[in-house]
Amino acid sequence: MSVLKLNQMLAEIRLVDSVNALLQWDQETCMPPSGGGIRSRQLAWLSHHAHSLHVGDSFRKALSSMVDLDSGEVHDCDAETRRMLYLAWRSWKRADSLPPEFVSRMSEHESLTQQAWTRMRPENDFSGFAPLLEEMVTLKRREAEYIGSGDTHYDTLLDGFEPDMTGRRLEEIFSILRRRLVPLIQRIQASPLFDSPDPLSEITYPIPAQRKLCREITTAMGLASDAFRMDQSAHPFTIGIHPGDVRITTRFTEADFRPAFFAAVHEAGHALYEQGLKPLPYGSPLEEAASMGVHESQSRLWENQVGRGRAFWSWCLPRLQSAFAPNLDALDVDRLVRAVNRVRPGLIRVEADEVTYTLHIILRFEIERDLINGAIQVRDLPELWNSLSRKYLGISPPDHRDGVMQDVHWSFGGFGYFPSYALGNMYASAILDSAHDHIPDLDGALAEGRLETLTHWLRENIHSKGSRQFGEALISGLTGVPFSPEPYLKYLEKKYTGIYKL
Amino acid sequence: MSVLKLNQMLAEIRLVDSVNALLQWDQETCMPPSGGGIRSRQLAWLSHHAHSLHVGDSFRKALSSMVDLDSGEVHDCDAETRRMLYLAWRSWKRADSLPPEFVSRMSEHESLTQQAWTRMRPENDFSGFAPLLEEMVTLKRREAEYIGSGDTHYDTLLDGFEPDMTGRRLEEIFSILRRRLVPLIQRIQASPLFDSPDPLSEITYPIPAQRKLCREITTAMGLASDAFRMDQSAHPFTIGIHPGDVRITTRFTEADFRPAFFAAVHEAGHALYEQGLKPLPYGSPLEEAASMGVHESQSRLWENQVGRGRAFWSWCLPRLQSAFAPNLDALDVDRLVRAVNRVRPGLIRVEADEVTYTLHIILRFEIERDLINGAIQVRDLPELWNSLSRKYLGISPPDHRDGVMQDVHWSFGGFGYFPSYALGNMYASAILDSAHDHIPDLDGALAEGRLETLTHWLRENIHSKGSRQFGEALISGLTGVPFSPEPYLKYLEKKYTGIYKL
Repeated sequence: MSVLKLNQMLAEIRLVDSVNALLQWDQETCMPPSGGGIRSRQLAWLSHHAHSLHVGDSFRKALSSMVDLDSGEVHDCDAETRRMLYLAWRSWKRADSLPPEFVSRMSEHESLTQQAWTRMRPENDFSGFAPLLEEMVTLKRREAEYIGSGDTHYDTLLDGFEPDMTGRRLEEIFSILRRRLVPLIQRIQASPLFDSPDPLSEITYPIPAQRKLCREITTAMGLASDAFRMDQSAHPFTIGIHPGDVRITTRFTEADFRPAFFAAVHEAGHALYEQGLKPLPYGSPLEEAASMGVHESQSRLWENQVGRGRAFWSWCLPRLQSAFAPNLDALDVDRLVRAVNRVRPGLIRVEADEVTYTLHIILRFEIERDLINGAIQVRDLPELWNSLSRKYLGISPPDHRDGVMQDVHWSFGGFGYFPSYALGNMYASAILDSAHDHIPDLDGALAEGRLETLTHWLRENIHSKGSRQFGEALISGLTGVPFSPEPYLKYLEKKYTGIYKL
Repeated sequence: MSVLKLNQMLAEIRLVDSVNALLQWDQETCMPPSGGGIRSRQLAWLSHHAHSLHVGDSFRKALSSMVDLDSGEVHDCDAETRRMLYLAWRSWKRADSLPPEFVSRMSEHESLTQQAWTRMRPENDFSGFAPLLEEMVTLKRREAEYIGSGDTHYDTLLDGFEPDMTGRRLEEIFSILRRRLVPLIQRIQASPLFDSPDPLSEITYPIPAQRKLCREITTAMGLASDAFRMDQSAHPFTIGIHPGDVRITTRFTEADFRPAFFAAVHEAGHALYEQGLKPLPYGSPLEEAASMGVHESQSRLWENQVGRGRAFWSWCLPRLQSAFAPNLDALDVDRLVRAVNRVRPGLIRVEADEVTYTLHIILRFEIERDLINGAIQVRDLPELWNSLSRKYLGISPPDHRDGVMQDVHWSFGGFGYFPSYALGNMYASAILDSAHDHIPDLDGALAEGRLETLTHWLRENIHSKGSRQFGEALISGLTGVPFSPEPYLKYLEKKYTGIYKL
């Protein structure tokens, strides 16, 4: 009886959150600029309302009849229900620690700051943006203080994206990655092939043809077309309103098909995960993502391990050639694979190659950790960004637009999110190794365009697991060994040794 | 103090309604088909929630301190506040008569039935649609019973769109219109010009050029572009989420620019009204449309009296020619004006000329009145539609798609809405006569493309008045004489006598 009541309330909270998701999607894709003020108020109202439901007496009463509210200890029941109740308690605990006015204020500030970022980034206006970001940091510190679950404020925020992960462990993992990646990059830069020209440059890629190609690939990946749409936005993203309504965005430039193509494949990976989380019953916390690192593993796996791989391009090259005929007719798979895996320390994270990508994340991790833990201030950011960029990537951005204002995340308060991408890369390699162990001739299937072979396996082994285990535990359970960055590093070393003939 | 409290609650209700409006817009323009189930639940939840706020104790308490809840009599205060309180009481009274479960059920059924209509109309599937429509009629009858404000169920529903209007008065007005329109149509059909060929047919109108032309005109009309967007949908409509976020849709066919063009101008008229209702304070019932008849007057005025007029086309013809060059280069204003005012009794209401348009409304009015009042059943509709179509228009639809399933309105429960179009036509003529009396050389301004001259006057005399008076009273106040169909009939008789040289 109490579980039923709890499920009903969880479903209502999920429903309100799904409306919130749609409004955010609309804000980034469709909303006329003058609609921004009322949008912030709508979002604040929805957040406030979902929060009220969450921390109200009925929810507390239903939950407390089955869970000890202080410890999270669950009374006698089967393992599935125990996990469900633990997850429900975990998110209730976070919600319950936040005052209602704080929740509305945060939501409204998130929406306004994100709108400001969209407007001010093209204008390179960091000094206009800084006061909003300062307020955001103050609010996020306060949020961490209210919740107080971690050893540091940053750990508390991180726990919202990657449960059981800490800043300290990330430092260890990142230091291993850095130690191995920096020499790899140096070896690549010393390769005679490093300076070979880019066969994809100096061509114009008409946007309608790019859009068509993106649709062709996302369909081949197995996205249910009646439950999916693709639009354009300043920063590509995925929103799952419901497994029946999942939306991705990408962004186009005529000068290069790669940004739109790989963004679409990346987001389609997220979208497959969202379509694969079947909420039965609706609102059950078991049917949420295992962690944001796992979510990013699904996108990065498709974008890189598959989408920048030789097998995939054996199938996709003729499609690419036909989309932009006759400009790419002379291309072969070897040159193409090298062209979509060009290693170049650059300014833009989302356009970074796999080898330098993690360095972008380490830069952001160090800054956001120190910002949230109070070691640095918003006014220090531009200088710090530039100096870390020189330290890790050897280059420094000429402006804020491609520097400290490059990513949307901080504008919506997503401090603690960036490590998800790096974890996603590492999880992806572990997952794909396991897929290769279990699917006979997976590369053969990909080379024939049977991408759904992989999708089905991911459905069964990742998507349908929901959050029965959090990120690291899910991956260890799948591979049978403790999680480590080793599979990812081996993947990179092998792949780039081949491409650059090291 | 109480007024402040009341304003706060009205603002919250309006905010929830604005989220509802966005979700409906998305449902018609963007939502993937599989998102329909969760969308219905989202809409039901929002309607239920807005209703709960409306009929909750706090609202009742705030309202009752200033208004007698039984009679609607307002305690001592200034005229503006008195009107505001009366309007707040009026909508509270309607809401308070509906049980909460009924409100959710109705909302969910509206969304599902509208989705079914979108799917089943192209398939011509009336028998699939009929059970949903039957349930809708049952629910609407029950709604009218709960509210019980009118002499008949139909009057009660009508009052939700056009306060103070009754079915009986509409019958009188419509009978005057029919008596004068039928002979006018007969005279037009007898004119030697009736059979002159359509100079706009047998040409292809590329859709991007149509879209550009539509944008050019809606901009010239004075729509604030940062508070506006235009999309495509099965049935053109306007949604005002806020004066800062107003959205219209149109629909395109390559065979003819007229459907998209006049739908866009029609919806842009609605959109100007929505942008002109400035909610200060937000949520005030004074800042709503005076009635749906007045709303339709703003769309029909721009679509017909202006958009199919000689002055407008003196300016717009070169723009039309340049959009579709060189196909229309030989056209002159006279032939064009005749071509956009071709009188042809036809099947489709939204494509009907001004002279036969009212007959389409009379047909729908008679059917929906009898359906809601219980004189006929859903199963009678196809036959009845066809026989009334023969009676009023001399033709009978070959299928349900262009017959009884033609319009979206009944699918979302909009019984009582259709008369708004006919009232809108009549209001529009009265309004435009008044505009001509007050704006020196209005036709000269239109002929020079200074469409905003009219927009400014409408802002001042219609939009900014909000609902300080309901439809008929607002129009009578503007013209200084009681409302009658006479100005509209005179307008039609004069215009078509000229065009067809009667």
